[in-house]
Amino acid sequence: MRKLWLICVGLLFLGSCTSQSSKQSNDDSVNYDQVKADSLGIPRGNKLSTAMKRAMKWPQHDSSWFFEYKTMALKGDLAYEKGVVRRDPSSVYKIDGQYYVWYSKSVGPTQGFAGDIENDKVFPWDRCDIWYATSTDGITWKEQGMAVPRGPKGNYDDRSVFTVEIMHWKDKYYLCYQTMGALYTVRSKDAIGMAWSTSPDGPWTKTTKPVLKPADNGVWKGTEDNRFLVEKKGDFDSQKVHDPCIIPYKGKFYMYYKGERMGEEITWGGREIKQGVAIADNPLGPYVKSEYNPISNSGHEICVWPYRGGIASLVTTDGPEKNTVQWAPDGINFEIEASIPGAPHAIGLVRSSDTNEYPLAALKWGLTHTYNSYDYQSIIRFEAYHPTHHAAKGEVGSKGWKGNKEK
Amino acid sequence: MRKLWLICVGLLFLGSCTSQSSKQSNDDSVNYDQVKADSLGIPRGNKLSTAMKRAMKWPQHDSSWFFEYKTMALKGDLAYEKGVVRRDPSSVYKIDGQYYVWYSKSVGPTQGFAGDIENDKVFPWDRCDIWYATSTDGITWKEQGMAVPRGPKGNYDDRSVFTVEIMHWKDKYYLCYQTMGALYTVRSKDAIGMAWSTSPDGPWTKTTKPVLKPADNGVWKGTEDNRFLVEKKGDFDSQKVHDPCIIPYKGKFYMYYKGERMGEEITWGGREIKQGVAIADNPLGPYVKSEYNPISNSGHEICVWPYRGGIASLVTTDGPEKNTVQWAPDGINFEIEASIPGAPHAIGLVRSSDTNEYPLAALKWGLTHTYNSYDYQSIIRFEAYHPTHHAAKGEVGSKGWKGNKEK
Repeated sequence: MRKLWLICVGLLFLGSCTSQSSKQSNDDSVNYDQVKADSLGIPRGNKLSTAMKRAMKWPQHDSSWFFEYKTMALKGDLAYEKGVVRRDPSSVYKIDGQYYVWYSKSVGPTQGFAGDIENDKVFPWDRCDIWYATSTDGITWKEQGMAVPRGPKGNYDDRSVFTVEIMHWKDKYYLCYQTMGALYTVRSKDAIGMAWSTSPDGPWTKTTKPVLKPADNGVWKGTEDNRFLVEKKGDFDSQKVHDPCIIPYKGKFYMYYKGERMGEEITWGGREIKQGVAIADNPLGPYVKSEYNPISNSGHEICVWPYRGGIASLVTTDGPEKNTVQWAPDGINFEIEASIPGAPHAIGLVRSSDTNEYPLAALKWGLTHTYNSYDYQSIIRFEAYHPTHHAAKGEVGSKGWKGNKEK
Repeated sequence: MRKLWLICVGLLFLGSCTSQSSKQSNDDSVNYDQVKADSLGIPRGNKLSTAMKRAMKWPQHDSSWFFEYKTMALKGDLAYEKGVVRRDPSSVYKIDGQYYVWYSKSVGPTQGFAGDIENDKVFPWDRCDIWYATSTDGITWKEQGMAVPRGPKGNYDDRSVFTVEIMHWKDKYYLCYQTMGALYTVRSKDAIGMAWSTSPDGPWTKTTKPVLKPADNGVWKGTEDNRFLVEKKGDFDSQKVHDPCIIPYKGKFYMYYKGERMGEEITWGGREIKQGVAIADNPLGPYVKSEYNPISNSGHEICVWPYRGGIASLVTTDGPEKNTVQWAPDGINFEIEASIPGAPHAIGLVRSSDTNEYPLAALKWGLTHTYNSYDYQSIIRFEAYHPTHHAAKGEVGSKGWKGNKEK
């Protein structure tokens, strides 16, 4: 009997100790990694506020993915030209000593959607063809001509071909781009087309059919041309597949793209915009959307590059993870590597084998566009850099610092 | 013996069932909340990419904290004036039908730190006094004069008084502001001073001593005037306490401030900048730094307002949580409510009892500043708004939409 009592008392004691230490270890505002707290500048002995609990969970990051950037105008045929739209530059390839870039080109003002949709221009990227230009120095460009025109009337791409990307694979060149056919209404769905050539100067042979289409699995509500009114929204890419960019990767072809959704809402992070990838065995397809889509929960125009066996991605503009640089070791599972103040939009990266050198090597310079007005955009150049310190004018570490003069 | 075997086999079976179901439940790319996945636009049957696993953990948020904004120039004495710095506007109070604002004012160019620090102007906010202006409509302002000058030579505030905030409490007015005394070097530490008056027009009585100081618990390395060289960094506010803003809250006075750190580094989120709060029983102090500091892991200028029993905070510019709107039910533990594209900096909010109406009521309009150049800044006005949809020109839901014309 006495042994039983002792056992019971012992068990009760153990039980209470366990529950007490679990209560203490549950107070995560006082029990925490001191080394990490010191690195974050938390005063010794302080409790963790909610914001610092979040900070304590940040993965170990260095700053090598963090960048700022500047922009500059281009010269020659890509300089500002009144009445002309040049926008959404492709990646830039250096071929036989010349840089090549492709882009959307159209002329004239944008009327928008409230008028005569059959004859008006509803967006700056409506009524576009794909043109291209070359440069020896990446600053002064010569417009070479039209690469891919709109298709003949009745074709799926007869309204506009735009937002183009270029891939060079095994002595062929492949353009992929957004297409609009027939009427360009608010509720229209688009499609992605492709064209190939044995030369960057063309001529280009189009695919007869689109290579990628929206999921089209929402349900509109009513007949008004209003993309926000739905019975059902469908997938993240139920209305649009935009900004296609193909990267040869792991023996296949990864076409990253932005989705737009029927019934798109404004969320706590702004527009609900997500990105997906479609994968093919051959450059011209068939492209099959990944079962892991969407691979980004935020973002806008696609900006991806291969980096040390994985894929890096610049996520801009929309969603809670806007303005981050991300990296996926497998091209699918992206982690956040940096949070940046902002970035150029619609980037055309310079494709080069040097991009594995360091994380931001791919962003040394590239192309983007600027809005001169709602109607007219021009292509410009950006240069990204990694700031080592935030140094003020005349401060050690600042540009042009010459040292304090002796008194 | 047989019963024992049966029990063992039964236990083994149970054990394997448990481990299998725990293995299945560990595959969080296939087992997930379908309702939430549908709302996020994940195609039915898909596996979760890493980015979507993060998205599935987002708290339920509506979009009521999300905003965009526009800015406009001011008229009258706060319009652009060549050769003059007016910056970092305080909150705006409406007193007897007039809006009042206080701000840093100085003249002349900034030489920076590389010259004769004793006689030069090292920052646009060096060599400042605090001035104030009034307006009936918040657009046209009349500069009324100097509110608080720099102190006499030898005083802790004899070099510059700047980055001011105003609090109205029980028929007295309290200004709090940054001060610099003696030489303004790169390694200088600042202090926060206060002044009070029975009238918004002054005269103002200063506190004889600072009310808040940096932690000063880092250790410089070497004698070069270089704030990035340290043996030890110290706390998040070891070098500076900036942007003080006092909110009467829960029967006390909460002085929110930005800290800057000795040996400040560039991180994966940019500059390492964090914010703290110091609390007092009386408006003029003593202010005691909270044991929960820092209460923000990111940000820059303080922009806080009382909202429905808690404190809302706009976090801008620096750190991984830059460009978020946050809210703390207790003024200490802040959660992220929205991720915004960007925000005006150095905001002076309009103090009004209407700010409880909805989250962004406090941001209907306010003041901020713009950089005309590195040397010269002007105060301007901003107006924030909540976009209900992202609607293009002529699209249903866009401004000025008049409806599609019938054909």
